[in-house]
Amino acid sequence: MNFCSECGSKVVEKIPAGDNRRRFVCDACDFIHYQNPRTVVGCLPVSGDKVLLCRRAIEPRLGYWTVPAGFMENGETMLEGALRETQEEAAATVKDETLYRLFDIPHINQVYVFFRGELDGDYGVGPESLESRLFSEDEIPWSELAFPIVTDILLEYFEDRKTGEFPIRVTKPGPQWAKDVGYFRKEEN
Amino acid sequence: MNFCSECGSKVVEKIPAGDNRRRFVCDACDFIHYQNPRTVVGCLPVSGDKVLLCRRAIEPRLGYWTVPAGFMENGETMLEGALRETQEEAAATVKDETLYRLFDIPHINQVYVFFRGELDGDYGVGPESLESRLFSEDEIPWSELAFPIVTDILLEYFEDRKTGEFPIRVTKPGPQWAKDVGYFRKEEN
Repeated sequence: MNFCSECGSKVVEKIPAGDNRRRFVCDACDFIHYQNPRTVVGCLPVSGDKVLLCRRAIEPRLGYWTVPAGFMENGETMLEGALRETQEEAAATVKDETLYRLFDIPHINQVYVFFRGELDGDYGVGPESLESRLFSEDEIPWSELAFPIVTDILLEYFEDRKTGEFPIRVTKPGPQWAKDVGYFRKEEN
Repeated sequence: MNFCSECGSKVVEKIPAGDNRRRFVCDACDFIHYQNPRTVVGCLPVSGDKVLLCRRAIEPRLGYWTVPAGFMENGETMLEGALRETQEEAAATVKDETLYRLFDIPHINQVYVFFRGELDGDYGVGPESLESRLFSEDEIPWSELAFPIVTDILLEYFEDRKTGEFPIRVTKPGPQWAKDVGYFRKEEN
């Protein structure tokens, strides 16, 4: 950030009065430009013993498989955002959605909120995807998953299926998962 | 938003290529200024049959009671933010924290993520609070709560205590709660 989005003057980085963190502050109009984490919302569509994944048509991780997800938009709820992304990326509708997984990714200032739901009807290929496909556990392309969170949520999901319990977890992505399944982090997610 | 924070030129509102929403876009450098919901993180500190609330020393809702919470900062996890806010507002530490409640407040582009935890030791009064106090259910100042989400989380918590089950809920704030307890929404939270 270089300029004030309110008045167009130069901003400086300083700790505002009454605060304890460095912020971008406008020297002309005193506007404080807070910067906060962004929320990514997504959904794991399930059909029988399979899950629906999309192969990314966009960077980063073009060509790798992911769970439908994207940045939450102003004016929508987390679930609305998750369903929108599922429609946009996999042309899919889900039903019986329930909260499933939260991730913290503090080094890139992101929070992920995933629901899971039953795939309801057909699916297709959205403009940000190269293809969509249902995978059973033994078909998952573990070495071609786009991000550590995708590895995590899939490993957890297929474990949870065995018990029928789907606890809502909140952690950072687990690099140990990635290592276990031979995932190599080529770039930050 | 009036000016580009990157180059200082005027921004215009338009739908960028490949998008379907209006964004602030810089006509000079083409930077797209996405605006996304902000996440508020908080914690409900519990001690025996009581909960710890703070009376707000700042606007909005100065003088009204709230659960410790505030905007999540870059570089922290949701739990770290919730514990930081609990320390800042109630000078309190909690242990055995667990995810408890998510709220969508789409009309002000906010998401709330609340944990609950056992109050661990003393508590006090942070700079953003006028006082802090432990309340049992029949002591809660229902008509002096700061926001609908505070009403909701307290009503739910005391109900959940009866069963010992604390399901993780995700909804918008419930106006019916507010009505039931005589809460009058003087301003948007």
